[in-house]
Amino acid sequence: MPTPAPTTKRGRPGYDQQSVLLIAVDVFNKHGYDATSMGILAENLGISKSAIYHHVPSKGDLLKLALDHALGGLEAILDQPEATSGSAEARLEFVVRQTIAVLVERLPFVTLLLRLRGNTEIERDALERRRTFDHKVAALISAARDEGSLRQDIDPRTVTRLLFGTINSIVEWYKPGGSLSPGKLADDVVAMAFHGLRVSP
Amino acid sequence: MPTPAPTTKRGRPGYDQQSVLLIAVDVFNKHGYDATSMGILAENLGISKSAIYHHVPSKGDLLKLALDHALGGLEAILDQPEATSGSAEARLEFVVRQTIAVLVERLPFVTLLLRLRGNTEIERDALERRRTFDHKVAALISAARDEGSLRQDIDPRTVTRLLFGTINSIVEWYKPGGSLSPGKLADDVVAMAFHGLRVSP
Repeated sequence: MPTPAPTTKRGRPGYDQQSVLLIAVDVFNKHGYDATSMGILAENLGISKSAIYHHVPSKGDLLKLALDHALGGLEAILDQPEATSGSAEARLEFVVRQTIAVLVERLPFVTLLLRLRGNTEIERDALERRRTFDHKVAALISAARDEGSLRQDIDPRTVTRLLFGTINSIVEWYKPGGSLSPGKLADDVVAMAFHGLRVSP
Repeated sequence: MPTPAPTTKRGRPGYDQQSVLLIAVDVFNKHGYDATSMGILAENLGISKSAIYHHVPSKGDLLKLALDHALGGLEAILDQPEATSGSAEARLEFVVRQTIAVLVERLPFVTLLLRLRGNTEIERDALERRRTFDHKVAALISAARDEGSLRQDIDPRTVTRLLFGTINSIVEWYKPGGSLSPGKLADDVVAMAFHGLRVSP
């Protein structure tokens, strides 16, 4: 199970680092990281620039914290017992469901990760970690294919692209708190991707 | 002797409007439409700003031409006989395959369409046309569900989102001219989305 986002109250009125981070991520997603200055952040937080510096040394540190939160959630999935033992198909389904859970729970953080351009060292490091995660899932897809659970007529690289395309597109439209729960969403993605939309004849 | 490829020379050396448009779309996709000035365009084309104005009156006209090319391709699909008669399931499969064909054939144009932010009137008009297209496909999905071809346990709105998520993600990774042909790509998407990745027991 993904762990809830940490709340770190520090006995001080106003923002703590976590709430500064959450607002910063929304501003990054809205204006783009490059276009967001510490001045724009301060304006959105309704506090002074120096008050932000009280919480984090730089804009880059905010980005790094945000991307760590997204990537940490995703990477933790692959260490869980359900991802490391059992049939490749069962492990893959577990990873797909958990990826959707992390994506929904950390929606603005994963959105930021998926929209990265790679203009800075911090962004490139995050993209490298994302690629490592993707490669591990791709290996799981190949293993599920080799064990005979997945269809053989599609190149595993295409399967990986299409499956991530389906999952990642969720950040573009999913509204947390609406009528579609994260669990039902995961059921729906698994149903479509693994079993297909068509009613079996 | 191989016959020479046809060229669209118009008795004038240099670019015609179509080639200016193609380069402009690449520059828009790379830097974002807002961040692209006529100066940047001229630099990428290796011609003067006044030479661009010879072909199109403004940056907005280039955007409009490009979006028309993407949207015109998509809208034409729904007018074809295979999209208007037959079972809803067959019509839906036809529309999915043709959407992928247009997406691949007009890749930079559709990429531009999918990345629009809606900051200008031209962009908002294009997004409205895109929504109309999406709604017509959503209606087809509902019809296929009502006729009993598609599974009933997923909300048709979710099906629409996931199906477009899968298809639209193609612009992020597909390389035309590579080993995966547009036809095989369409087969793969149809196989995954309608029949599922899992081997039937």
